[in-house]
Amino acid sequence: MIRHVAVFRFAPSFTDAQRDAWMAMLRSLPEQIPELRRMSVGVDVLGGPSSNELAIVADFDDLEGLDAYTRHPAHAEVLAISTPVKVSLATVDFEVPDPS
Amino acid sequence: MIRHVAVFRFAPSFTDAQRDAWMAMLRSLPEQIPELRRMSVGVDVLGGPSSNELAIVADFDDLEGLDAYTRHPAHAEVLAISTPVKVSLATVDFEVPDPS
Repeated sequence: MIRHVAVFRFAPSFTDAQRDAWMAMLRSLPEQIPELRRMSVGVDVLGGPSSNELAIVADFDDLEGLDAYTRHPAHAEVLAISTPVKVSLATVDFEVPDPS
Repeated sequence: MIRHVAVFRFAPSFTDAQRDAWMAMLRSLPEQIPELRRMSVGVDVLGGPSSNELAIVADFDDLEGLDAYTRHPAHAEVLAISTPVKVSLATVDFEVPDPS
């Protein structure tokens, strides 16, 4: 399994309501992209010194599945919202032996 | 459920062998810290423009479980290895409805 992790900081202009709507778009992606096996997305609740604002954890069977997600039109619609307000993005894509 | 995500960049002085040994320490934590329900850890395989080096995804029943992990001596041993070689760390701790 390939696990895709993405951690975001957003500009203050991205309101909580806009962010909630964006998260709802993300949560609808597994219904639209069969290669996307599971997705969790949420806003930080800790507010520590290393805390960013929002994270996505998305699981795929393999790198081909991740590639299908990256290229999917529904994913492009999500990016069109976040790209203009994204201050930073840190990702890691790593192999996991089985769903965990 | 609380999902803890941590994304790291390390100094070049942290060798692959040292990093592998550190990941083995991390993977032993669920046996030592009962509040840590699941952990996945791995090294980035994509190498894209936003890619960092290594990610951890750790799941807890609640914030008290996360706090127990943070304060556990076995976690302190892991931090003692990574803190001197850590170039950047971005975390997000977020609520997830159920294991996913």
